[in-house]
Amino acid sequence: MTTARARTEQVLAGIVERAAPVSGELDAAMRYSVLGGGKRLRPILVYAAGHALGAEDKALDAPAAAVELIHAYSLVHDDLPAMDDDDMRRGRPTVHRAYSEAMAILAGDALQTLAFEVLAETRHPRLGAMVRALANASGREGMAAGQALDLSAVGGRLDVDALATMHGYKTGALIRAAVRLGALAAADEDDPRVAALDTYAAAIGLAFQIQDDILDVAGDAATLGKATGADAARAKPTYPALLGLDGARAKARGLLDEALSALAPLGERAYPLAELARHMIDRDH
Amino acid sequence: MTTARARTEQVLAGIVERAAPVSGELDAAMRYSVLGGGKRLRPILVYAAGHALGAEDKALDAPAAAVELIHAYSLVHDDLPAMDDDDMRRGRPTVHRAYSEAMAILAGDALQTLAFEVLAETRHPRLGAMVRALANASGREGMAAGQALDLSAVGGRLDVDALATMHGYKTGALIRAAVRLGALAAADEDDPRVAALDTYAAAIGLAFQIQDDILDVAGDAATLGKATGADAARAKPTYPALLGLDGARAKARGLLDEALSALAPLGERAYPLAELARHMIDRDH
Repeated sequence: MTTARARTEQVLAGIVERAAPVSGELDAAMRYSVLGGGKRLRPILVYAAGHALGAEDKALDAPAAAVELIHAYSLVHDDLPAMDDDDMRRGRPTVHRAYSEAMAILAGDALQTLAFEVLAETRHPRLGAMVRALANASGREGMAAGQALDLSAVGGRLDVDALATMHGYKTGALIRAAVRLGALAAADEDDPRVAALDTYAAAIGLAFQIQDDILDVAGDAATLGKATGADAARAKPTYPALLGLDGARAKARGLLDEALSALAPLGERAYPLAELARHMIDRDH
Repeated sequence: MTTARARTEQVLAGIVERAAPVSGELDAAMRYSVLGGGKRLRPILVYAAGHALGAEDKALDAPAAAVELIHAYSLVHDDLPAMDDDDMRRGRPTVHRAYSEAMAILAGDALQTLAFEVLAETRHPRLGAMVRALANASGREGMAAGQALDLSAVGGRLDVDALATMHGYKTGALIRAAVRLGALAAADEDDPRVAALDTYAAAIGLAFQIQDDILDVAGDAATLGKATGADAARAKPTYPALLGLDGARAKARGLLDEALSALAPLGERAYPLAELARHMIDRDH
Protein backbone atom coordinates (compact mmCIF):
# COMPACT_ATOMS: atom_id res chain seq x y z
CA MET A 1 0.00 0.00 0.00
CA THR A 2 2.78 2.43 0.89
CA THR A 3 4.55 1.71 -2.39
CA ALA A 4 1.36 2.12 -4.42
CA ARG A 5 0.50 5.34 -2.64
CA ALA A 6 3.95 6.81 -3.24
CA ARG A 7 3.80 5.80 -6.90
CA THR A 8 0.35 7.40 -7.19
CA GLU A 9 1.62 10.70 -5.78
CA GLN A 10 4.48 10.70 -8.25
CA VAL A 11 2.31 9.86 -11.24
CA LEU A 12 -0.34 12.45 -10.32
CA ALA A 13 2.28 15.15 -9.78
CA GLY A 14 3.77 14.36 -13.18
CA ILE A 15 0.37 14.67 -14.82
CA VAL A 16 -0.80 17.94 -13.30
CA GLU A 17 2.57 19.62 -13.66
CA ARG A 18 3.57 18.49 -17.13
CA ALA A 19 1.84 21.07 -19.33
CA ALA A 20 2.61 24.73 -19.89
CA PRO A 21 -0.38 26.34 -18.20
CA VAL A 22 -2.89 28.21 -20.34
CA SER A 23 -4.63 29.61 -17.27
CA GLY A 24 -2.28 29.66 -14.29
CA GLU A 25 -5.17 29.96 -11.85
CA LEU A 26 -7.05 26.99 -13.29
CA ASP A 27 -3.94 24.82 -13.19
CA ALA A 28 -3.19 25.94 -9.63
CA ALA A 29 -6.71 25.04 -8.49
CA MET A 30 -6.38 21.64 -10.17
CA ARG A 31 -3.00 20.96 -8.51
CA TYR A 32 -4.37 22.13 -5.15
CA SER A 33 -7.16 19.60 -5.45
CA VAL A 34 -5.17 16.66 -6.80
CA LEU A 35 -1.99 17.02 -4.74
CA GLY A 36 -3.68 17.88 -1.45
CA GLY A 37 -3.35 14.47 0.11
CA GLY A 38 -6.03 11.85 0.40
CA LYS A 39 -5.94 8.13 1.05
CA ARG A 40 -5.42 7.28 -2.65
CA LEU A 41 -7.59 4.27 -2.03
CA ARG A 42 -8.85 4.03 -5.62
CA PRO A 43 -5.42 4.08 -7.31
CA ILE A 44 -4.14 1.61 -4.72
CA LEU A 45 -7.04 -0.64 -5.72
CA VAL A 46 -6.10 -0.26 -9.40
CA TYR A 47 -2.53 -1.38 -8.69
CA ALA A 48 -3.58 -4.23 -6.39
CA ALA A 49 -6.23 -5.53 -8.80
CA GLY A 50 -3.83 -5.28 -11.72
CA HIS A 51 -1.08 -7.10 -9.81
CA ALA A 52 -3.56 -9.82 -8.84
CA LEU A 53 -3.93 -10.63 -12.56
CA GLY A 54 -0.26 -10.13 -13.43
CA ALA A 55 -0.20 -6.57 -14.80
CA GLU A 56 2.91 -4.45 -14.32
CA ASP A 57 3.00 -1.07 -12.60
CA LYS A 58 3.74 0.77 -15.83
CA ALA A 59 0.48 -0.42 -17.39
CA LEU A 60 -1.42 0.62 -14.27
CA ASP A 61 -0.18 4.18 -13.80
CA ALA A 62 -2.63 5.81 -16.21
CA PRO A 63 -5.74 3.89 -15.05
CA ALA A 64 -4.77 4.59 -11.42
CA ALA A 65 -4.36 8.30 -12.09
CA ALA A 66 -7.55 8.47 -14.17
CA VAL A 67 -9.68 7.01 -11.39
CA GLU A 68 -8.16 9.35 -8.80
CA LEU A 69 -8.73 12.37 -11.08
CA ILE A 70 -12.42 11.45 -11.34
CA HIS A 71 -12.53 11.10 -7.55
CA ALA A 72 -10.78 14.48 -7.12
CA TYR A 73 -13.21 16.23 -9.49
CA SER A 74 -16.18 14.76 -7.64
CA LEU A 75 -14.89 16.07 -4.29
CA VAL A 76 -14.36 19.58 -5.67
CA HIS A 77 -17.91 19.70 -7.04
CA ASP A 78 -19.50 17.96 -4.02
CA ASP A 79 -17.98 20.60 -1.72
CA LEU A 80 -19.56 23.50 -3.67
CA PRO A 81 -22.05 25.76 -1.85
CA ALA A 82 -24.93 24.48 -4.01
CA MET A 83 -24.02 20.89 -3.15
CA ASP A 84 -22.68 19.88 0.30
CA ASP A 85 -21.36 23.39 1.05
CA ASP A 86 -18.18 22.29 2.81
CA ASP A 87 -15.48 24.79 3.77
CA MET A 88 -12.82 22.28 4.78
CA ARG A 89 -11.45 19.11 3.23
CA ARG A 90 -8.45 17.15 4.55
CA GLY A 91 -7.71 19.93 7.03
CA ARG A 92 -7.47 22.65 4.34
CA PRO A 93 -9.96 25.07 2.79
CA THR A 94 -11.96 23.47 -0.03
CA VAL A 95 -11.13 24.56 -3.59
CA HIS A 96 -13.95 27.11 -3.84
CA ARG A 97 -12.83 28.66 -0.53
CA ALA A 98 -9.14 28.71 -1.51
CA TYR A 99 -9.85 30.01 -5.05
CA SER A 100 -13.38 30.89 -6.12
CA GLU A 101 -16.61 29.11 -6.84
CA ALA A 102 -16.18 29.65 -10.58
CA MET A 103 -12.65 28.28 -10.47
CA ALA A 104 -13.81 25.25 -8.44
CA ILE A 105 -16.48 24.47 -11.06
CA LEU A 106 -13.93 24.78 -13.87
CA ALA A 107 -11.21 22.86 -12.01
CA GLY A 108 -13.63 19.99 -11.39
CA ASP A 109 -14.69 20.04 -15.03
CA ALA A 110 -11.10 20.01 -16.25
CA LEU A 111 -10.11 17.24 -13.83
CA GLN A 112 -12.82 15.02 -15.26
CA THR A 113 -11.58 15.76 -18.78
CA LEU A 114 -8.00 15.06 -17.71
CA ALA A 115 -9.03 11.63 -16.43
CA PHE A 116 -10.19 10.56 -19.88
CA GLU A 117 -7.23 12.24 -21.54
CA VAL A 118 -4.72 10.41 -19.35
CA LEU A 119 -6.45 7.12 -20.07
CA ALA A 120 -6.56 7.76 -23.82
CA GLU A 121 -2.85 8.54 -23.92
CA THR A 122 -1.97 5.01 -22.87
CA ARG A 123 -2.89 3.58 -26.29
CA HIS A 124 -3.69 0.38 -24.43
CA PRO A 125 -5.29 -2.35 -26.62
CA ARG A 126 -8.26 -2.46 -24.21
CA LEU A 127 -8.54 1.34 -24.08
CA GLY A 128 -12.16 1.30 -25.25
CA ALA A 129 -13.23 -1.03 -22.44
CA MET A 130 -11.33 1.13 -19.94
CA VAL A 131 -12.97 4.36 -21.10
CA ARG A 132 -16.38 2.67 -21.03
CA ALA A 133 -15.78 1.35 -17.49
CA LEU A 134 -14.65 4.73 -16.20
CA ALA A 135 -17.45 6.68 -17.91
CA ASN A 136 -20.10 4.20 -16.88
CA ALA A 137 -19.01 4.48 -13.24
CA SER A 138 -18.93 8.27 -13.28
CA GLY A 139 -22.03 9.54 -15.02
CA ARG A 140 -25.78 9.29 -14.97
CA GLU A 141 -25.63 5.54 -14.34
CA GLY A 142 -22.92 5.93 -11.72
CA MET A 143 -21.44 8.51 -9.39
CA ALA A 144 -23.33 11.58 -10.63
CA ALA A 145 -26.62 9.69 -10.35
CA GLY A 146 -25.69 8.64 -6.80
CA GLN A 147 -24.98 12.23 -5.88
CA ALA A 148 -28.37 13.25 -7.31
CA LEU A 149 -30.09 10.51 -5.29
CA ASP A 150 -28.18 11.61 -2.19
CA LEU A 151 -29.25 15.24 -2.62
CA SER A 152 -32.88 14.27 -2.93
CA ALA A 153 -32.57 11.98 0.13
CA VAL A 154 -31.42 14.69 2.55
CA GLY A 155 -34.11 15.17 5.17
CA GLY A 156 -36.12 12.33 3.66
CA ARG A 157 -36.35 8.67 4.59
CA LEU A 158 -34.47 5.84 2.92
CA ASP A 159 -34.62 2.21 4.00
CA VAL A 160 -31.52 0.01 4.07
CA ASP A 161 -32.00 -1.14 0.47
CA ALA A 162 -32.47 2.37 -0.88
CA LEU A 163 -29.41 3.50 1.07
CA ALA A 164 -27.33 0.67 -0.41
CA THR A 165 -28.58 1.60 -3.89
CA MET A 166 -27.64 5.24 -3.42
CA HIS A 167 -24.16 4.40 -2.11
CA GLY A 168 -23.72 1.79 -4.82
CA TYR A 169 -23.91 4.61 -7.34
CA LYS A 170 -22.36 7.42 -5.35
CA THR A 171 -19.17 5.75 -4.10
CA GLY A 172 -19.45 2.08 -5.04
CA ALA A 173 -19.40 2.60 -8.80
CA LEU A 174 -16.01 4.29 -8.85
CA ILE A 175 -14.48 1.72 -6.48
CA ARG A 176 -15.72 -1.02 -8.82
CA ALA A 177 -14.28 0.92 -11.76
CA ALA A 178 -10.90 1.14 -10.01
CA VAL A 179 -10.75 -2.63 -9.60
CA ARG A 180 -12.05 -3.20 -13.13
CA LEU A 181 -9.53 -0.83 -14.74
CA GLY A 182 -6.70 -2.59 -12.94
CA ALA A 183 -8.06 -5.94 -14.10
CA LEU A 184 -8.50 -4.74 -17.70
CA ALA A 185 -4.82 -3.84 -17.85
CA ALA A 186 -4.15 -7.60 -17.67
CA ALA A 187 -7.27 -9.44 -18.82
CA ASP A 188 -10.25 -9.27 -21.16
CA GLU A 189 -13.68 -8.12 -20.02
CA ASP A 190 -15.13 -11.65 -20.17
CA ASP A 191 -12.33 -13.28 -18.14
CA PRO A 192 -13.93 -14.99 -15.09
CA ARG A 193 -11.25 -13.48 -12.85
CA VAL A 194 -12.56 -10.04 -13.82
CA ALA A 195 -16.01 -11.14 -12.62
CA ALA A 196 -14.54 -12.38 -9.31
CA LEU A 197 -12.83 -9.03 -8.80
CA ASP A 198 -16.10 -7.27 -9.55
CA THR A 199 -17.84 -9.19 -6.74
CA TYR A 200 -14.96 -8.27 -4.43
CA ALA A 201 -15.21 -4.60 -5.44
CA ALA A 202 -18.99 -4.37 -4.96
CA ALA A 203 -18.66 -5.75 -1.41
CA ILE A 204 -15.78 -3.52 -0.32
CA GLY A 205 -17.40 -0.48 -1.93
CA LEU A 206 -20.43 -0.78 0.29
CA ALA A 207 -18.36 -1.74 3.35
CA PHE A 208 -16.22 1.34 2.81
CA GLN A 209 -19.29 3.57 2.85
CA ILE A 210 -20.70 1.93 5.96
CA GLN A 211 -17.35 2.51 7.68
CA ASP A 212 -17.54 6.17 6.58
CA ASP A 213 -20.95 6.47 8.21
CA ILE A 214 -19.65 4.75 11.38
CA LEU A 215 -16.69 7.13 11.58
CA ASP A 216 -19.02 10.11 11.24
CA VAL A 217 -20.82 8.89 14.38
CA ALA A 218 -18.02 7.26 16.36
CA GLY A 219 -14.81 8.64 14.85
CA ASP A 220 -12.36 11.22 16.10
CA ALA A 221 -12.50 14.61 14.35
CA ALA A 222 -8.73 15.22 14.63
CA THR A 223 -7.86 11.84 13.09
CA LEU A 224 -10.47 12.29 10.37
CA GLY A 225 -9.40 15.84 9.51
CA LYS A 226 -13.05 16.92 9.38
CA ALA A 227 -15.94 17.45 11.79
CA THR A 228 -17.94 14.41 12.90
CA GLY A 229 -21.69 14.35 13.28
CA ALA A 230 -22.10 16.12 9.92
CA ASP A 231 -24.48 13.48 8.54
CA ALA A 232 -26.81 13.71 11.53
CA ALA A 233 -26.71 17.52 11.43
CA ARG A 234 -27.82 17.39 7.76
CA ALA A 235 -30.42 14.69 8.48
CA LYS A 236 -28.62 12.44 5.99
CA PRO A 237 -29.70 8.80 6.13
CA THR A 238 -26.86 6.58 7.41
CA TYR A 239 -26.28 2.93 8.31
CA PRO A 240 -25.76 3.59 12.03
CA ALA A 241 -29.06 5.52 12.06
CA LEU A 242 -30.89 2.64 10.38
CA LEU A 243 -29.13 -0.38 11.91
CA GLY A 244 -27.56 1.00 15.07
CA LEU A 245 -23.79 1.23 15.50
CA ASP A 246 -23.38 -2.50 16.24
CA GLY A 247 -25.69 -3.45 13.37
CA ALA A 248 -23.70 -1.28 10.98
CA ARG A 249 -20.42 -2.85 12.17
CA ALA A 250 -21.83 -6.36 11.70
CA LYS A 251 -22.98 -5.46 8.19
CA ALA A 252 -19.50 -4.19 7.30
CA ARG A 253 -17.93 -7.41 8.64
CA GLY A 254 -20.33 -9.53 6.58
CA LEU A 255 -19.35 -7.62 3.44
CA LEU A 256 -15.68 -8.10 4.27
CA ASP A 257 -16.21 -11.87 4.41
CA GLU A 258 -17.99 -11.72 1.05
CA ALA A 259 -15.09 -9.80 -0.48
CA LEU A 260 -12.50 -12.25 0.88
CA SER A 261 -14.45 -15.26 -0.44
CA ALA A 262 -14.56 -13.73 -3.91
CA LEU A 263 -10.75 -13.49 -3.90
CA ALA A 264 -10.20 -17.14 -2.97
CA PRO A 265 -9.92 -18.50 -6.55
CA LEU A 266 -7.26 -15.91 -7.43
CA GLY A 267 -4.60 -17.34 -5.12
CA GLU A 268 -1.67 -15.61 -3.46
CA ARG A 269 -1.40 -12.73 -5.89
CA ALA A 270 -4.70 -11.41 -4.53
CA TYR A 271 -3.29 -11.22 -0.99
CA PRO A 272 -2.78 -7.42 -1.11
CA LEU A 273 -6.43 -7.01 -2.17
CA ALA A 274 -7.47 -8.99 0.92
CA GLU A 275 -5.26 -6.82 3.13
CA LEU A 276 -6.77 -3.73 1.56
CA ALA A 277 -10.30 -4.92 2.26
CA ARG A 278 -9.40 -5.56 5.92
CA HIS A 279 -7.75 -2.17 6.14
CA MET A 280 -10.82 -0.43 4.70
CA ILE A 281 -13.04 -1.87 7.42
CA ASP A 282 -10.58 -1.29 10.27
CA ARG A 283 -9.52 2.23 9.34
CA ASP A 284 -10.05 5.11 11.75
CA HIS A 285 -9.94 7.87 9.09
CA MET B 1 -27.15 21.22 -43.06
CA THR B 2 -30.84 20.53 -42.54
CA THR B 3 -30.24 16.78 -42.94
CA ALA B 4 -27.28 16.80 -40.56
CA ARG B 5 -29.21 18.82 -38.00
CA ALA B 6 -32.19 16.46 -38.13
CA ARG B 7 -29.90 13.45 -37.81
CA THR B 8 -28.17 15.08 -34.83
CA GLU B 9 -31.51 15.63 -33.05
CA GLN B 10 -32.43 12.00 -33.61
CA VAL B 11 -29.07 10.66 -32.42
CA LEU B 12 -29.02 12.90 -29.33
CA ALA B 13 -32.59 11.98 -28.39
CA GLY B 14 -31.69 8.30 -28.70
CA ILE B 15 -28.69 8.76 -26.42
CA VAL B 16 -30.31 10.71 -23.60
CA GLU B 17 -33.45 8.60 -23.61
CA ARG B 18 -31.99 5.12 -23.96
CA ALA B 19 -31.16 4.28 -20.34
CA ALA B 20 -33.47 3.41 -17.45
CA PRO B 21 -32.99 6.47 -15.26
CA VAL B 22 -31.26 6.04 -11.90
CA SER B 23 -32.15 9.59 -10.88
CA GLY B 24 -35.19 10.82 -12.80
CA GLU B 25 -34.39 14.43 -11.97
CA LEU B 26 -30.80 14.21 -13.18
CA ASP B 27 -31.89 12.59 -16.44
CA ALA B 28 -34.63 15.19 -16.91
CA ALA B 29 -32.14 18.03 -16.42
CA MET B 30 -29.79 16.40 -18.93
CA ARG B 31 -32.57 15.97 -21.50
CA TYR B 32 -33.73 19.55 -20.93
CA SER B 33 -30.24 20.77 -21.71
CA VAL B 34 -29.47 18.52 -24.68
CA LEU B 35 -32.83 18.55 -26.43
CA GLY B 36 -33.57 22.24 -25.92
CA GLY B 37 -32.66 23.32 -29.43
CA GLY B 38 -29.48 25.00 -30.52
CA LYS B 39 -27.82 25.43 -33.87
CA ARG B 40 -26.06 22.03 -33.69
CA LEU B 41 -23.17 23.70 -35.44
CA ARG B 42 -20.54 21.36 -33.99
CA PRO B 43 -22.23 18.08 -34.98
CA ILE B 44 -22.97 19.54 -38.42
CA LEU B 45 -19.24 20.22 -38.71
CA VAL B 46 -18.46 16.63 -37.70
CA TYR B 47 -20.72 15.29 -40.46
CA ALA B 48 -19.44 17.76 -43.07
CA ALA B 49 -15.78 17.14 -42.23
CA GLY B 50 -16.31 13.39 -42.24
CA HIS B 51 -18.13 13.50 -45.59
CA ALA B 52 -15.33 15.63 -47.03
CA LEU B 53 -12.95 12.70 -46.43
CA GLY B 54 -15.45 9.97 -47.38
CA ALA B 55 -16.79 8.83 -44.02
CA GLU B 56 -20.36 7.57 -43.79
CA ASP B 57 -23.04 9.00 -41.51
CA LYS B 58 -23.11 5.93 -39.30
CA ALA B 59 -19.44 6.35 -38.37
CA LEU B 60 -20.06 10.03 -37.60
CA ASP B 61 -23.08 9.78 -35.31
CA ALA B 62 -21.15 9.11 -32.10
CA PRO B 63 -18.42 11.73 -32.67
CA ALA B 64 -21.12 14.27 -33.62
CA ALA B 65 -23.13 13.53 -30.48
CA ALA B 66 -20.03 13.51 -28.26
CA VAL B 67 -18.96 16.99 -29.38
CA GLU B 68 -22.47 18.37 -28.87
CA LEU B 69 -22.68 16.80 -25.40
CA ILE B 70 -19.45 18.57 -24.43
CA HIS B 71 -20.89 21.80 -25.81
CA ALA B 72 -24.14 21.26 -23.89
CA TYR B 73 -22.30 20.59 -20.62
CA SER B 74 -20.23 23.75 -21.07
CA LEU B 75 -23.35 25.88 -21.57
CA VAL B 76 -25.01 24.48 -18.43
CA HIS B 77 -21.95 25.25 -16.32
CA ASP B 78 -21.23 28.63 -17.97
CA ASP B 79 -24.77 29.77 -17.14
CA LEU B 80 -24.36 29.03 -13.39
CA PRO B 81 -24.61 31.93 -10.92
CA ALA B 82 -20.91 31.65 -10.05
CA MET B 83 -20.00 31.85 -13.75
CA ASP B 84 -21.95 34.02 -16.23
CA ASP B 85 -25.12 33.98 -14.10
CA ASP B 86 -27.57 33.70 -16.98
CA ASP B 87 -31.27 33.09 -16.39
CA MET B 88 -32.27 32.45 -19.98
CA ARG B 89 -30.82 30.39 -22.82
CA ARG B 90 -32.48 29.85 -26.19
CA GLY B 91 -35.64 31.55 -24.95
CA ARG B 92 -36.07 29.20 -21.95
CA PRO B 93 -34.92 29.27 -18.33
CA THR B 94 -31.36 27.98 -17.94
CA VAL B 95 -30.94 24.55 -16.32
CA HIS B 96 -30.21 25.89 -12.83
CA ARG B 97 -33.32 28.08 -13.04
CA ALA B 98 -35.54 25.26 -14.34
CA TYR B 99 -34.14 22.68 -11.87
CA SER B 100 -31.63 23.72 -9.22
CA GLU B 101 -28.04 24.84 -9.06
CA ALA B 102 -26.97 21.45 -7.67
CA MET B 103 -28.78 19.62 -10.44
CA ALA B 104 -27.23 21.91 -13.07
CA ILE B 105 -23.74 21.17 -11.74
CA LEU B 106 -24.45 17.42 -11.79
CA ALA B 107 -26.18 17.48 -15.17
CA GLY B 108 -23.20 19.28 -16.69
CA ASP B 109 -20.83 16.79 -15.07
CA ALA B 110 -22.81 13.82 -16.34
CA LEU B 111 -23.11 15.29 -19.85
CA GLN B 112 -19.34 15.52 -20.06
CA THR B 113 -19.03 11.91 -18.93
CA LEU B 114 -21.67 10.87 -21.46
CA ALA B 115 -19.66 12.46 -24.27
CA PHE B 116 -16.72 10.17 -23.59
CA GLU B 117 -18.98 7.19 -23.02
CA VAL B 118 -20.75 7.66 -26.36
CA LEU B 119 -17.42 7.95 -28.12
CA ALA B 120 -15.97 4.86 -26.40
CA GLU B 121 -18.99 2.78 -27.38
CA THR B 122 -18.18 3.18 -31.07
CA ARG B 123 -15.22 0.77 -30.81
CA HIS B 124 -13.74 2.71 -33.71
CA PRO B 125 -10.15 1.71 -34.61
CA ARG B 126 -9.07 5.33 -34.11
CA LEU B 127 -10.98 5.66 -30.82
CA GLY B 128 -7.86 6.61 -28.87
CA ALA B 129 -7.11 9.53 -31.21
CA MET B 130 -10.75 10.62 -31.00
CA VAL B 131 -10.82 10.57 -27.19
CA ARG B 132 -7.52 12.47 -27.10
CA ALA B 133 -8.81 15.10 -29.55
CA LEU B 134 -12.03 15.61 -27.61
CA ALA B 135 -10.34 15.71 -24.19
CA ASN B 136 -7.57 17.98 -25.40
CA ALA B 137 -10.13 20.44 -26.75
CA SER B 138 -12.22 20.42 -23.58
CA GLY B 139 -9.92 20.65 -20.59
CA ARG B 140 -7.14 22.73 -19.14
CA GLU B 141 -5.51 23.13 -22.55
CA GLY B 142 -8.84 23.85 -24.24
CA MET B 143 -12.32 25.04 -23.45
CA ALA B 144 -12.08 25.05 -19.63
CA ALA B 145 -8.85 27.04 -19.82
CA GLY B 146 -10.53 29.51 -22.19
CA GLN B 147 -13.39 29.95 -19.77
CA ALA B 148 -10.90 30.59 -16.95
CA LEU B 149 -9.10 33.20 -19.10
CA ASP B 150 -12.44 34.78 -19.96
CA LEU B 151 -13.46 35.05 -16.30
CA SER B 152 -10.21 36.74 -15.38
CA ALA B 153 -10.57 39.11 -18.38
CA VAL B 154 -13.94 40.56 -17.34
CA GLY B 155 -13.49 44.20 -16.51
CA GLY B 156 -9.84 44.02 -17.56
CA ARG B 157 -8.11 44.86 -20.81
CA LEU B 158 -7.15 42.42 -23.55
CA ASP B 159 -5.58 43.36 -26.84
CA VAL B 160 -6.64 41.70 -30.11
CA ASP B 161 -4.04 38.93 -29.79
CA ALA B 162 -4.99 38.09 -26.20
CA LEU B 163 -8.66 38.09 -27.21
CA ALA B 164 -7.93 35.68 -30.08
CA THR B 165 -5.98 33.44 -27.70
CA MET B 166 -8.83 33.38 -25.18
CA HIS B 167 -11.43 32.60 -27.85
CA GLY B 168 -9.13 30.04 -29.44
CA TYR B 169 -9.37 28.06 -26.23
CA LYS B 170 -12.90 28.92 -25.14
CA THR B 171 -14.82 28.23 -28.35
CA GLY B 172 -12.22 27.55 -31.05
CA ALA B 173 -10.83 24.37 -29.50
CA LEU B 174 -14.14 22.52 -29.58
CA ILE B 175 -14.90 23.65 -33.13
CA ARG B 176 -11.49 22.33 -34.18
CA ALA B 177 -12.23 19.10 -32.30
CA ALA B 178 -15.53 18.73 -34.17
CA VAL B 179 -13.78 18.95 -37.54
CA ARG B 180 -10.97 16.69 -36.37
CA LEU B 181 -13.30 14.01 -35.03
CA GLY B 182 -15.17 13.95 -38.31
CA ALA B 183 -11.88 13.68 -40.16
CA LEU B 184 -10.58 10.91 -37.88
CA ALA B 185 -13.62 8.81 -38.73
CA ALA B 186 -12.13 8.54 -42.24
CA ALA B 187 -8.40 9.26 -42.03
CA ASP B 188 -5.33 8.90 -39.83
CA GLU B 189 -4.02 11.74 -37.67
CA ASP B 190 -1.02 12.35 -39.94
CA ASP B 191 -3.04 12.51 -43.19
CA PRO B 192 -2.36 15.94 -44.83
CA ARG B 193 -6.10 16.35 -45.44
CA VAL B 194 -6.58 16.31 -41.65
CA ALA B 195 -4.08 19.18 -41.39
CA ALA B 196 -5.94 21.13 -44.10
CA LEU B 197 -9.20 20.68 -42.22
CA ASP B 198 -7.50 21.85 -39.03
CA THR B 199 -6.48 25.12 -40.73
CA TYR B 200 -10.07 25.52 -41.92
CA ALA B 201 -11.42 24.85 -38.43
CA ALA B 202 -9.09 27.30 -36.69
CA ALA B 203 -10.18 30.08 -39.06
CA ILE B 204 -13.92 29.47 -38.81
CA GLY B 205 -13.69 29.03 -35.04
CA LEU B 206 -12.38 32.53 -34.59
CA ALA B 207 -14.69 33.96 -37.27
CA PHE B 208 -17.64 32.40 -35.47
CA GLN B 209 -16.69 34.11 -32.22
CA ILE B 210 -16.20 37.47 -33.91
CA GLN B 211 -19.67 37.10 -35.43
CA ASP B 212 -21.04 36.32 -31.94
CA ASP B 213 -19.51 39.54 -30.64
CA ILE B 214 -20.93 41.46 -33.62
CA LEU B 215 -24.41 40.07 -33.03
CA ASP B 216 -24.23 41.07 -29.36
CA VAL B 217 -23.72 44.66 -30.51
CA ALA B 218 -25.72 44.78 -33.73
CA GLY B 219 -28.04 41.78 -33.57
CA ASP B 220 -31.76 41.54 -32.89
CA ALA B 221 -32.70 40.17 -29.44
CA ALA B 222 -35.82 38.38 -30.72
CA THR B 223 -33.92 36.57 -33.49
CA LEU B 224 -31.08 35.71 -31.10
CA GLY B 225 -33.37 34.44 -28.33
CA LYS B 226 -31.32 36.36 -25.74
CA ALA B 227 -30.65 39.93 -24.75
CA THR B 228 -28.08 41.93 -26.75
CA GLY B 229 -25.55 44.29 -25.20
CA ALA B 230 -24.69 41.70 -22.54
CA ASP B 231 -20.95 41.79 -23.26
CA ALA B 232 -20.76 45.56 -22.92
CA ALA B 233 -22.83 45.46 -19.73
CA ARG B 234 -20.31 43.00 -18.25
CA ALA B 235 -17.34 44.97 -19.57
CA LYS B 236 -16.27 41.89 -21.52
CA PRO B 237 -13.62 42.55 -24.14
CA THR B 238 -15.01 42.06 -27.66
CA TYR B 239 -13.86 42.46 -31.26
CA PRO B 240 -16.26 45.32 -32.05
CA ALA B 241 -14.97 47.15 -28.96
CA LEU B 242 -11.36 46.69 -30.06
CA LEU B 243 -11.66 47.00 -33.84
CA GLY B 244 -14.97 48.81 -34.33
CA LEU B 245 -17.95 47.15 -35.97
CA ASP B 246 -16.55 47.51 -39.51
CA GLY B 247 -13.12 46.33 -38.42
CA ALA B 248 -14.62 43.25 -36.77
CA ARG B 249 -16.62 42.48 -39.91
CA ALA B 250 -13.51 42.81 -42.07
CA LYS B 251 -11.60 40.50 -39.76
CA ALA B 252 -14.35 37.87 -40.00
CA ARG B 253 -14.32 38.13 -43.82
CA GLY B 254 -10.55 37.66 -43.88
CA LEU B 255 -10.85 34.51 -41.78
CA LEU B 256 -13.58 33.21 -44.09
CA ASP B 257 -11.21 33.60 -47.07
CA GLU B 258 -8.52 31.73 -45.12
CA ALA B 259 -10.93 28.89 -44.36
CA LEU B 260 -12.04 28.59 -47.99
CA SER B 261 -8.43 28.52 -49.24
CA ALA B 262 -7.62 25.68 -46.86
CA LEU B 263 -10.45 23.64 -48.37
CA ALA B 264 -9.30 24.07 -51.98
CA PRO B 265 -7.14 20.90 -52.16
CA LEU B 266 -10.03 18.76 -50.91
CA GLY B 267 -12.19 19.24 -53.99
CA GLU B 268 -15.96 19.04 -54.38
CA ARG B 269 -16.63 16.89 -51.33
CA ALA B 270 -15.62 19.84 -49.16
CA TYR B 271 -18.30 22.05 -50.69
CA PRO B 272 -20.66 21.72 -47.68
CA LEU B 273 -17.82 22.82 -45.39
CA ALA B 274 -17.39 25.94 -47.51
CA GLU B 275 -21.14 26.63 -47.37
CA LEU B 276 -21.04 26.16 -43.61
CA ALA B 277 -18.20 28.65 -43.24
CA ARG B 278 -20.13 31.24 -45.27
CA HIS B 279 -23.25 30.58 -43.24
CA MET B 280 -21.39 31.04 -39.96
CA ILE B 281 -20.22 34.51 -40.99
CA ASP B 282 -23.58 35.59 -42.47
CA ARG B 283 -25.80 34.25 -39.67
CA ASP B 284 -28.11 36.58 -37.74
CA HIS B 285 -28.46 34.32 -34.66
